[in-house]
Amino acid sequence: MSEQSIDFEIQARDGEARAGIMTTLRGVIETPVFMPVGTAGTVKGIRFEELESPELDARIILGNTYHLWLRPGIETIRACGGLHKFIGWERAMLTDSGGFQVWSLGALRKITEEGTEFRSHIDGAKCFLSPEISMEVQTALGAEIVMVFDECAPGEASQEEARRSMELTLRWGKRSKEAFDVAQVTKLRALESQGSDTETSAQVANLRYRQALFGIVQGASHLDLRRESLERTVEIGFDGYAMGGLSVGEEKPVMLEVIEEIAPRLPVDKPRYLMGVGTPEDLIEAVARGVDMFDCVLPTRNGRNGQAFTSQGRLNIKNGRYVNDQRPLDEACECSVCRRHSRAFIRHLYQSGEMLASILLTHHNLAFFLDTMRRVRQAIRSGQFAKFRREYTEQLSSGLG
Amino acid sequence: MSEQSIDFEIQARDGEARAGIMTTLRGVIETPVFMPVGTAGTVKGIRFEELESPELDARIILGNTYHLWLRPGIETIRACGGLHKFIGWERAMLTDSGGFQVWSLGALRKITEEGTEFRSHIDGAKCFLSPEISMEVQTALGAEIVMVFDECAPGEASQEEARRSMELTLRWGKRSKEAFDVAQVTKLRALESQGSDTETSAQVANLRYRQALFGIVQGASHLDLRRESLERTVEIGFDGYAMGGLSVGEEKPVMLEVIEEIAPRLPVDKPRYLMGVGTPEDLIEAVARGVDMFDCVLPTRNGRNGQAFTSQGRLNIKNGRYVNDQRPLDEACECSVCRRHSRAFIRHLYQSGEMLASILLTHHNLAFFLDTMRRVRQAIRSGQFAKFRREYTEQLSSGLG
Repeated sequence: MSEQSIDFEIQARDGEARAGIMTTLRGVIETPVFMPVGTAGTVKGIRFEELESPELDARIILGNTYHLWLRPGIETIRACGGLHKFIGWERAMLTDSGGFQVWSLGALRKITEEGTEFRSHIDGAKCFLSPEISMEVQTALGAEIVMVFDECAPGEASQEEARRSMELTLRWGKRSKEAFDVAQVTKLRALESQGSDTETSAQVANLRYRQALFGIVQGASHLDLRRESLERTVEIGFDGYAMGGLSVGEEKPVMLEVIEEIAPRLPVDKPRYLMGVGTPEDLIEAVARGVDMFDCVLPTRNGRNGQAFTSQGRLNIKNGRYVNDQRPLDEACECSVCRRHSRAFIRHLYQSGEMLASILLTHHNLAFFLDTMRRVRQAIRSGQFAKFRREYTEQLSSGLG
Repeated sequence: MSEQSIDFEIQARDGEARAGIMTTLRGVIETPVFMPVGTAGTVKGIRFEELESPELDARIILGNTYHLWLRPGIETIRACGGLHKFIGWERAMLTDSGGFQVWSLGALRKITEEGTEFRSHIDGAKCFLSPEISMEVQTALGAEIVMVFDECAPGEASQEEARRSMELTLRWGKRSKEAFDVAQVTKLRALESQGSDTETSAQVANLRYRQALFGIVQGASHLDLRRESLERTVEIGFDGYAMGGLSVGEEKPVMLEVIEEIAPRLPVDKPRYLMGVGTPEDLIEAVARGVDMFDCVLPTRNGRNGQAFTSQGRLNIKNGRYVNDQRPLDEACECSVCRRHSRAFIRHLYQSGEMLASILLTHHNLAFFLDTMRRVRQAIRSGQFAKFRREYTEQLSSGLG
């Protein structure tokens, strides 16, 4: 059916590091890209206007199938014309499949061949999610990029455990693709038959560019399983490829080893997405190994907990040393928070339980992550990535004055 | 000493309603004016950039002596160059004296002739606040407008109780004025003797325009006491006059009766400030009785609790009827929240405990209050206030569709 959902083009390389352009119906995304996480339809603590401002300029944000399916529920989102329209965000989005979130519930879930049974974290109600349901929900949400429904193994999973999980993810990956194709056609037909009012026509036009579906490579820390997962996932064929099951308890060198083994072997003409990673250091190291896309809750979650990411490492605003400190969070940062507010003030807000502490720390942290990626792209394009990587990493570990 | 702190000029009248200009060192304030409340140095849930935006354009905000004195403490604020510099707000401010906040502590406080002993709401530590201490703290904070340290009687106070409280407030008012004058001179001398670096010079220049001190008329619901308080407060002589102890438990007609009795009798050439009031209806009715300045936590506090003020009355976003409602909070509102987001989305955010619910509702509510005051000023200037008052009030009670 229909045209390709996203177009991806590599424009510059520097070693394994690559800079490219991902073109979607809802705008152009330069890669490597960091995607702020908007779990329940909001990137916590920040308005969309700020995300769109030239200072942050986030081109794509995440939404979570699991959370949105449970609340407000797919009927509300359908009634409001899809996720973009419901939340009021006109740029690109990616929805996670719910696989990881359900897996994180731990004892609250039961995994079978068919799918995963679990208790809602909201009201304890029994729920069931499968590749087919996830694809139906994600089609209704309407994000530019949809993820297959996968199963994640813990970082320290044994060979046997990791293989079982990887095989299940492969079978679920196939089922995801089949269900996705059916759901896309069904949605298009349903819209076409609804008549020709302007809104429906616009939605039909949108669907001609169908959504993109990304596969997920699993295999825990076992490189042989990771390679096998890679080959068999590529065999199924997706619009892009993600590495899942990293940063879930394994040691950092293990994570980097897996990325180094897998990323460069992923199809060169498709986006490579490292899920749920990571610190600024992690991003740089993963870019050096050929990764194009990232998402992580660190800038937002840690911001709410009083932590600022800075060019000289992390700063904990709770620390008493900042009580009269009139310097900005990061003296090298030019974001609106650093131009205006001192550590002393933000510490006061945090200690007073004021919402503005979270708002300001979230804004600065996102500005820092997004600016880092902007600098990464510039460095790659100018053939200076190795130098940038060295200097950036050195400065990060230099410590705050 | 020094020049006048604020210049106040009435430019238009329509019945008792009056529109004017209050000129301060930190900008011009058109009256009648609504002042958003920034208790602890932040208007809860909104960034200063938004308050300054043309959409809201708040010209003056409140700070609270009680809260800022306890945390972060006056030494931190002094070290950071005063309240404006500490929080990063360059427009005008007014600081409440702490009298009302200490009074609100109820059983936790003990009032003597000297001042008020109380336990901190933060750590239970024993504290003591008096007219002299409040003036010293407010001088250090450096707001354009300082309030005398007063004592508030409950709305239903007996004649005897209200007289005792009013007499104490009068004695404290005199002591406030004396201590204020001393503190202003002391601060100026201290700064002058510190040498001539640019920052100090700027502070000295600021102090040449000394801060303004407002007196507070008390007397609970007893009109005779209110009139006596008015006369004796005006006798002491202040830069502006407030009515305190209203909206503290008395019936609404009683409040309006006190305002009607007192406001028009306050000096015509000084700003008249109604403290802690009120709903949009209250603002209109008080303006009709000659009031120039207002502050109230309603737009921010009720916003955080899920309530939106609209041109057709209040809307409780928790209500199930809004679950799929794609209309904005207020169909007649042109604020950035109403232009972008639906009731359904904001309800979802609220139900999910997302910070963005508070952020959006706070923004809309402040936009609504500030826009109402803008319309009030226009109506007075064009001689249409009576018509505006009738139509606005009718629409407010028309109910939401």
